[in-house]
Amino acid sequence: MTTRQDVDKKPSTSYNVFLDQVDVYAQKLRRGTPNALTLGNLTCGLFSLIFAINGLHRFSAIFIFIAAAFDLFDGRVARALGITSDIGAQLDSLADVVSFGVAPAILAHTIQNWSFLMVIAFVSFPLAGAWRLARFNVHPTQGHFIGLPIPAAGLAVAFLAFFSYVSPLIMIGLALFMISKIEVPKL
Amino acid sequence: MTTRQDVDKKPSTSYNVFLDQVDVYAQKLRRGTPNALTLGNLTCGLFSLIFAINGLHRFSAIFIFIAAAFDLFDGRVARALGITSDIGAQLDSLADVVSFGVAPAILAHTIQNWSFLMVIAFVSFPLAGAWRLARFNVHPTQGHFIGLPIPAAGLAVAFLAFFSYVSPLIMIGLALFMISKIEVPKL
Repeated sequence: MTTRQDVDKKPSTSYNVFLDQVDVYAQKLRRGTPNALTLGNLTCGLFSLIFAINGLHRFSAIFIFIAAAFDLFDGRVARALGITSDIGAQLDSLADVVSFGVAPAILAHTIQNWSFLMVIAFVSFPLAGAWRLARFNVHPTQGHFIGLPIPAAGLAVAFLAFFSYVSPLIMIGLALFMISKIEVPKL
Repeated sequence: MTTRQDVDKKPSTSYNVFLDQVDVYAQKLRRGTPNALTLGNLTCGLFSLIFAINGLHRFSAIFIFIAAAFDLFDGRVARALGITSDIGAQLDSLADVVSFGVAPAILAHTIQNWSFLMVIAFVSFPLAGAWRLARFNVHPTQGHFIGLPIPAAGLAVAFLAFFSYVSPLIMIGLALFMISKIEVPKL
């Protein structure tokens, strides 16, 4: 009869050593997946910036959409695999401020010429987004959000920019909505 | 004799009401100062991006230097006033990833044409910086840093860019230094 102990004490042939090694890497891969998705979000934000700078504003908007897809999945994958981590949560905020705060602001700037309102919109949008992220990390809410989440605001600007439309007033409105105390239901 | 109680019970003349109001605002101003400095850091990072995009790379580098000055003072002012806050710490990381991660990468891109190495440098530099910030927020160190802090890396790239010099190899080296476990003494 093969007991549990016999199975554990498998001979350390090179094949078994190889299998153990594969197992170690598989575990590492599993633990790293949510953070890899978050870094994918940040990388899309960086490419969105590059496309905006080079005048390809539709590509820039599309990369903000892809960043949002990464952002949607990283938290879910982490919870599904049971490997949520504090580093993951921090990394998520850092990716969000770039992909949904800075990238939409730069994208808007590359489409529309400067005006006084545009300068206010360009600065206030990422600032309000950063404030919203910092507040949420310190005082997380359950069941609903307080103020518009930054990915929603960034997506709204990217969606309008995809159709070459930029409105500094809408951006300032979204910035105020982000730092407001208005309750927003979670989808 | 004027007792303490008499002083506390000052008549609610309009002048005294005005003084109370001034006091409330002074307290708010005092509490808000460190976070205002941090938002100053982020604003400089945003202006650095704008100058880089418009081909003014010296101005872009200078705004990264000014962001570093804000970054140096926000923590010190917060500790001196005894008003360090969790939101302040979060906001600081979000400002740092923009001013010393994304802005130097974009600045380098606007000076040097694309090459395979440049793409690696452009993506790895902000990614490593974000990872470094997330790790530090979760595992803060006392007396020394583990890995190069992101402001130092960002300043190094900005300093070279000020003299129109960009080296993707140096940027990749700095990125590796940021995520390394090498002990760096605090200045």
